[in-house]
Amino acid sequence: MAEELIFYTNPQSRGRIVRWMLEEVGVPYETKVLEYGTTMKSPEYLSINPMGKVPAIVHGGRVVTECAAICAYLADVLPEAGLLPQTLDEKANYYRWLFFAAGPLESVLNNRAVFKEEPEVEKQRMLGYGNFRDTLNALSVAVKANPYIAGDRFTAADVYVGSHIGWGLQFGTMESREEFIRYFDRLRERPAFTRAMSLDDVQAKEISEG
Amino acid sequence: MAEELIFYTNPQSRGRIVRWMLEEVGVPYETKVLEYGTTMKSPEYLSINPMGKVPAIVHGGRVVTECAAICAYLADVLPEAGLLPQTLDEKANYYRWLFFAAGPLESVLNNRAVFKEEPEVEKQRMLGYGNFRDTLNALSVAVKANPYIAGDRFTAADVYVGSHIGWGLQFGTMESREEFIRYFDRLRERPAFTRAMSLDDVQAKEISEG
Ligand SMILES: N[C@@H](CCC(=O)N[C@@H](CS)C(=O)NCC(=O)O)C(=O)O
Ligand SMILES: N[C@@H](CCC(=O)N[C@@H](CS)C(=O)NCC(=O)O)C(=O)O
Repeated sequence: MAEELIFYTNPQSRGRIVRWMLEEVGVPYETKVLEYGTTMKSPEYLSINPMGKVPAIVHGGRVVTECAAICAYLADVLPEAGLLPQTLDEKANYYRWLFFAAGPLESVLNNRAVFKEEPEVEKQRMLGYGNFRDTLNALSVAVKANPYIAGDRFTAADVYVGSHIGWGLQFGTMESREEFIRYFDRLRERPAFTRAMSLDDVQAKEISEG
Repeated sequence: MAEELIFYTNPQSRGRIVRWMLEEVGVPYETKVLEYGTTMKSPEYLSINPMGKVPAIVHGGRVVTECAAICAYLADVLPEAGLLPQTLDEKANYYRWLFFAAGPLESVLNNRAVFKEEPEVEKQRMLGYGNFRDTLNALSVAVKANPYIAGDRFTAADVYVGSHIGWGLQFGTMESREEFIRYFDRLRERPAFTRAMSLDDVQAKEISEG
């Protein structure tokens, strides 16, 4: 598949998740760095992502936004990369935890940062994540069950779920549970992860030095 | 695939989304109705979903939780149902809007109900959904682009995105934009949707009458 692949990002953003995924799939891509508040809100970029947010990819003219969607899309359309779940067991875990991280986990971490107090128990019923403790406990179940999220093999779900756990450990927004540390230690050794981080670090340095 | 399929739900819950999906795929399944606060929090059910929330499915012993994950999983493992995206164009839209609805859309609707005021602009940068208006505008782009979310054909993404829009219109949690109404009118005519709604309505009535 020699379709043109453009990656819109900022090195200080969730775009790092997609950078890692792109390095995992190993196809060539062009990076376009956008700035908060300016180029991210330009009419040109709003026609790609009306949310005015990064990351986004444009693959052969097709737009995909949302980090988790980009991971799932790339794994699906570039199956040679071997990042798709194969067995029924793997598929069940793959979808379950990919959506769990994109929904409840992302949501509870954002809300704790923005709204501070936890909603009362009555309201936790309707909130998809319930509360912080239940969400982390469910995530513990996921990472303890197998070496990787879907099973014995690394898949695109590890890029997404693993990024959340890596960030959570680094910035202290998640408890440093032993199972999270052990899981993330397995991921951070991947060459694509190291490559992705240093590409973004270089780009972040360039920006901060003007 | 004659694997046993068990559906854990409550007729007054997001489980209605999965009920619709199950009726779309057309395989036999057994429904287990759980009650808020009691059977949903039983040790037996917590071993299936540690969040103590519905819906969940158990398919040949494999657990899948999260409405959107269940839709994506069933479409994937029961491809005869024809609810998967086929072309690259369809795949891009399918993943993009499925994750958009499970992440930003679900999150902004919950947060408006629970926290009332909208976070200040500074904080919208880090919130995956930004704000209510941007999120609805992005959703309008999605439903205006094609008759269905992924393109010309109905897919599992329509079950999930369409359910959000249907609920939003019914309960007034979303603006009644013409494009939402038109889109949902196309969906509500589906026999599987009608069947699902009446199955859940009957079950809800049984519960309320004791
Ligand atoms: N749900 C989106 C969230 C994207 C997002 O919120 N990106 C932030 C950076 S991490 C952004 O671009 N903010 C800029 C803004 O809102 O103006 C995803 O998972 O990709
Ligand atoms: N993110 C989950 C949300 C599930 C959820 O919050 N379900 C509610 C009913 S709509 C529930 O079971 N609440 C019971 C409780 O939290 O005790 C999904 O999409 O399936």
